[in-house]
Amino acid sequence: MDKDLKQYLDFVETSVTELKFPAKPESLYQPMTYILSLGGKRIRPVLTLLSTSIFSGEYTRAKHASLAVELFHNFSLIHDDIMDKAPMRRGKETVHTKWNTDIAILSGDAMLIEAYKQLQHYNPEISYKLIQLFNQTSIEVCEGQQMDMDFETLQKVSIDDYIQMIKLKTAVLLGCSLKMGAIVANTGESNQSDIYNFGVNLGIAFQLQDDILDLYADQNNFGKLVGGDILANKKTYLILRAMEDSNELQLASLHKMIQSQIASEKIDLALSLFDQLKIKEKAENKMNDFYQMAINNIQHLEITEDKKSLLLQLAEYLMARGK
Amino acid sequence: MDKDLKQYLDFVETSVTELKFPAKPESLYQPMTYILSLGGKRIRPVLTLLSTSIFSGEYTRAKHASLAVELFHNFSLIHDDIMDKAPMRRGKETVHTKWNTDIAILSGDAMLIEAYKQLQHYNPEISYKLIQLFNQTSIEVCEGQQMDMDFETLQKVSIDDYIQMIKLKTAVLLGCSLKMGAIVANTGESNQSDIYNFGVNLGIAFQLQDDILDLYADQNNFGKLVGGDILANKKTYLILRAMEDSNELQLASLHKMIQSQIASEKIDLALSLFDQLKIKEKAENKMNDFYQMAINNIQHLEITEDKKSLLLQLAEYLMARGK
Repeated sequence: MDKDLKQYLDFVETSVTELKFPAKPESLYQPMTYILSLGGKRIRPVLTLLSTSIFSGEYTRAKHASLAVELFHNFSLIHDDIMDKAPMRRGKETVHTKWNTDIAILSGDAMLIEAYKQLQHYNPEISYKLIQLFNQTSIEVCEGQQMDMDFETLQKVSIDDYIQMIKLKTAVLLGCSLKMGAIVANTGESNQSDIYNFGVNLGIAFQLQDDILDLYADQNNFGKLVGGDILANKKTYLILRAMEDSNELQLASLHKMIQSQIASEKIDLALSLFDQLKIKEKAENKMNDFYQMAINNIQHLEITEDKKSLLLQLAEYLMARGK
Repeated sequence: MDKDLKQYLDFVETSVTELKFPAKPESLYQPMTYILSLGGKRIRPVLTLLSTSIFSGEYTRAKHASLAVELFHNFSLIHDDIMDKAPMRRGKETVHTKWNTDIAILSGDAMLIEAYKQLQHYNPEISYKLIQLFNQTSIEVCEGQQMDMDFETLQKVSIDDYIQMIKLKTAVLLGCSLKMGAIVANTGESNQSDIYNFGVNLGIAFQLQDDILDLYADQNNFGKLVGGDILANKKTYLILRAMEDSNELQLASLHKMIQSQIASEKIDLALSLFDQLKIKEKAENKMNDFYQMAINNIQHLEITEDKKSLLLQLAEYLMARGK
């Protein structure tokens, strides 16, 4: 498995490096090459290659579909970084900081179009299906991003709306990446829909794990500052669950935590309240529900057992952070 | 002709009004409905319908292709208005003013995706060709917009680069609108390429006319302030031609005009210098060159003479402003 993943990752890196955009206008195309060169885990394109491999064996056929999802992901990073006013990404300046907002808007637009161009490297029938899925997914990602921005100013966000937001903003693109591989391999509708649901459920589980790790990760193994979401008053699953489950006294404590400007006090109040309300366990249960649904999706696939076990290993690999 | 155009325009208005986006998230979809409701001349979708009609007779088949070009056009307006810091459009607030820049970026993105969705309302073979043309055109429009922004800070812009910029930023979308209609009608490659070139050449002529009218229109018949480009020191064909053709003395006068902060002085200096250099005649000659190429493109089309005469009337109609 690790050997396969490494092979796919190398293939993605080579394909990304070989992507050549026109030389001019420089300020349109240089930001695209720049953000792609910042690296990242390349999870999405690897999923596409893996999926084609599982359903047909020839992963190289998925090259252009995998580039499309990586280009789309990077387009969304450029535009999201503007909206989040993020100065840095992966230790380097974001596009709107290194150039300016206008250039970041326009090169992001062009990168979205470049993603579509990749999907035309297939025959019209396959291309049609890929673009159909891509249209649906990319509009959902926009919806998720808008919901996320809307949540910042809302007093109350329901758990259901929150799950819907992380599904749209993050998980559907994982499902799409896998389903694109299945479409390229030309496998049946039932496999296509099971592998898509596997990706979506795994994506939601992954995102819930992100929320849990924010507060409960071991700082030594964690790339970010532990408690960052709490300090930013970000509406994650943990806080929203606490809001729903608190009695009046606990709500007062929650508001004290939100209003506190002292970092250590905020974190201590969060840890103590979440402990009372068993928030960590509840979040883990929710995460496991989605993880279990993802595992069930694997079982439904019409593929050999050894391939099912590959997908299971992939799921375990993706969820193994912070342990 | 006018009767046909009116029929197409009514059809476009009905199609645009019937476009229904999801209710939520409101801040993603409301700006799309809003900008589409501001109206505009709907030239591009009308060209698509007209083109299908000329090549096959059933213009209604081009409904979704015409919506795609109108959606794309409005996407580019939303994003361009951010870059131009324009507070108003068609007498109403721009999207980034009425909402905010983040919402304008994201709803613009979603509108570009909605344009692609329209192109899937055809069978895979036709859809493939439409999307191929759309990809090429939309990336060119981004290149043109980037060139236009780059020109603002450049000391010197060549006439060739300027023509290339207006071709990419404006004219190729007119060519694309017409060619899409030809693709929907499933006419031959030669007709597709001639109608495309007709649109591009007509678009360049139209844009050059825009530059001329800015200074030489009759204020009574002109929707904008006469001399607006001169007051904004905008690098139009007139100024760039004057820069290329000026001797040392005239260059000094040109720089005086550019540096002057007094509106009447700027305009007077421009009129006097341009008169000396015969800039109006030169610009009209350039415009007529492209107009003539557009007319030649009509002659190459394999269609009946009465249809050629329809296109000729269309060209005359589009160029009849300010006369």
